[in-house]
Amino acid sequence: MVRVGIMGYGNLGKGIECALRDAKDMTLTAVFTRRSPETVSIQTAGVPVCSAEEITDWKEKLDVLILCGGSATDLPEQTKQYAKLFHVVDSFDTHAKIPEHFAAVDAAAKETGHVAMISVGWDPGMFSLNRLYAEAILPDGKHETFWGKGVSQGHSDAIRRIEGVKNAKQYTIPIEDALKKVRSGEQPELTARQKHLRECFVVAEEGADTKKIEETIKTMPNYFADYDTIVHFIDEKTFAAEHSGMAHGGFVIRSGKTGLAKEHTAVIEYSLQLDSNPEFTANVLVAYARAAMRLSADGVSGCKTVFDVPPAYLSDKSGEELRKTIL
Amino acid sequence: MVRVGIMGYGNLGKGIECALRDAKDMTLTAVFTRRSPETVSIQTAGVPVCSAEEITDWKEKLDVLILCGGSATDLPEQTKQYAKLFHVVDSFDTHAKIPEHFAAVDAAAKETGHVAMISVGWDPGMFSLNRLYAEAILPDGKHETFWGKGVSQGHSDAIRRIEGVKNAKQYTIPIEDALKKVRSGEQPELTARQKHLRECFVVAEEGADTKKIEETIKTMPNYFADYDTIVHFIDEKTFAAEHSGMAHGGFVIRSGKTGLAKEHTAVIEYSLQLDSNPEFTANVLVAYARAAMRLSADGVSGCKTVFDVPPAYLSDKSGEELRKTIL
Repeated sequence: MVRVGIMGYGNLGKGIECALRDAKDMTLTAVFTRRSPETVSIQTAGVPVCSAEEITDWKEKLDVLILCGGSATDLPEQTKQYAKLFHVVDSFDTHAKIPEHFAAVDAAAKETGHVAMISVGWDPGMFSLNRLYAEAILPDGKHETFWGKGVSQGHSDAIRRIEGVKNAKQYTIPIEDALKKVRSGEQPELTARQKHLRECFVVAEEGADTKKIEETIKTMPNYFADYDTIVHFIDEKTFAAEHSGMAHGGFVIRSGKTGLAKEHTAVIEYSLQLDSNPEFTANVLVAYARAAMRLSADGVSGCKTVFDVPPAYLSDKSGEELRKTIL
Repeated sequence: MVRVGIMGYGNLGKGIECALRDAKDMTLTAVFTRRSPETVSIQTAGVPVCSAEEITDWKEKLDVLILCGGSATDLPEQTKQYAKLFHVVDSFDTHAKIPEHFAAVDAAAKETGHVAMISVGWDPGMFSLNRLYAEAILPDGKHETFWGKGVSQGHSDAIRRIEGVKNAKQYTIPIEDALKKVRSGEQPELTARQKHLRECFVVAEEGADTKKIEETIKTMPNYFADYDTIVHFIDEKTFAAEHSGMAHGGFVIRSGKTGLAKEHTAVIEYSLQLDSNPEFTANVLVAYARAAMRLSADGVSGCKTVFDVPPAYLSDKSGEELRKTIL
C-alpha cells in the first residue's frame, strides 16, 4: 500500500481524500494543515490531522505527499521544499512560470532521489496531454483550447476587489459558433472575444452604484475588456442558492491535414464536463501519485510532468491485463 | 535523421509516405513490396522500391520498418520476423489476439535488442489510450466506445461473399440517442443494436434476387443479425461516385462519479472525425516510429504498446520546449 499524505485541506485536499477511497493500492496516512489541527475535522476515521510544521517527522512514514495549495504563493515554496522529503505531486497551474518552477523542483528532487510530478490536473494536465498527442499526430494542423462553462476564480476575485461589490462569481463560457468552426476543420483565426463569453453574477453592497460597477467590470484590462461581458446583479440569497457550485469543463480541438495534396481533414477532440472541478482534479493527482511511485521503482528521480509518464503507470492494472482488456 | 522503411504499399503504406513528409526528423529510405517492384511506382523521387525478399540486405541501412500489412495473415508473421532486423511498428488490430502477438513479438525483439511497437493506430491506439487514461482517472465509472460513421472492411467483405453481389460497402453508424445517454453520465446498459446502425450499399449482379440478398445480409449471424440494418441497392456508377471514400471516426466516452457520496458526475469524451482513415492511422504510426527510436536510446528493447510510451516521445520538440509551449 502506498502511504499518501495531503498537504492542505481545502476543496482540492477534500477531493484527494475522496479519490483515495477508490484507489485500492493507496491509503490516506495523514492530513497536514497550516491551521490549528484541532480545528480541522476530516471525513476519514483514524487518520491524523497534523500541523504542517511537523511534517519532517513523517519522513519515514509517508511515500507520496500531494500538495493542495495555491499556485501564487504556496506551491513555488512547498513543492521544492517537500520534494526533499517525499515523492510529491502538485497542480501548479501558472502556465508562464512552469519552466522556472520545474527547474527549482527538479534540483530539489534530484538531491534526495525523489520524483516530483508538477502541473498535474486538467489544464495543465489532461488538456496538455491532448494538445501534445494531437500535435504529434497531426503536425500540419492547429489546435484551440476552450474552457467552460465554468467558474474562473481569478476573474471572480477581480470583481470582488471592486468598490461596492460584496460577492461575485464569473463564468467563462465557450462560444458555440467558434467551437463549430474549429470542429469543421477550417482552422479559423479567433480573437479572445470570439472564443469565450464572460458572465458575471454580482452581489452589490447596499446603496452601491451598480452602473459604475458594471462599467468598471466591462472595461477592466486583461480580465474583461477584450471580451463580451454580461453582468447580472442578484441578491445574496440567490447567490448562495444558485452560484455555489464548482462545475467546469472545456474542449481541446485540433484539426489537421493529411494526404499527398493535403486534401483530407482530420479532427481530434477531447472534452471534459465536470460537476466538481476540484474533485476531478484530485482524481488526476491521485493517478499521478501512483505513477510517481512506479517511476521511482524504475530508478527515476527529479521533476516530471504528465508528458513524461507512460500511460500504463496511471493504472493499478498490470500491463498484461491492460493489453487484454482495453487495448 | 531516422531512416524509415515501409513494408507494403497499399493505402496504409501510401499514408506513411505522406506522413513522413511532415516529419522533419525522419526520412523515407525504401519501400518494400511483395509485388514485382517494377510494377509499383511511389510518390517520392529517389526512393527505391525493393522486393520484400531483399529486406535482409537493408539491415544496416534502416532504423525503423513500418509494417503496413493486414492483421489476419501478414502481421502475425512479419512483425516477429522483422523485429529481428529493425525497430518495427505495426497496426495489429485483432483485439482478441493481442496477448499472443505481443508474446511472440516480445521474444523476437528482445533477442536482438530492438523495440517493436504493436497495435498502433486509433483503435487499438488512440482510443485505447483514452480508455486507459479515463479509467485511471475515474475508477468508479464506465466507458463506451462508438465507431463511425465509417466503413467496416470486414462487414463489406462479408456482404461481397453473398451470391449475386458484385460489390458492397457497409457503414457503421453510431446511434445519436445512445451517444446522448452515455454523455449524460447515466451509464446505460446498451445492446449492440442500441449503439450502432449498419447501412449497406450493394451492387447486385444482373438478374440477382435482391430480396434474397437483403434477407441474407440482415440475418447474417455475428455481422448483422444483432443490429438494425438498412440495405440499399445501387448501380455501379453510383457506387463508384459515392462510396469510394475512406472516412471514419468514433467516440470514447467515460462517465464516472466523484465526491464523498458519489454525488458528482464527470464525463470525459475523446472523438475522431477523419476524412481518411488510413492516412490518419499512418500519422499515428509515424509518431510512434519516432517514439521507438527514443525508447531504444533509453536502452529499452522488446514489444511495447501505446500504453508504455511517455507522451513526450511522440513529439520532435524537446521536453523544455513542450513545457514552455503546450503544458
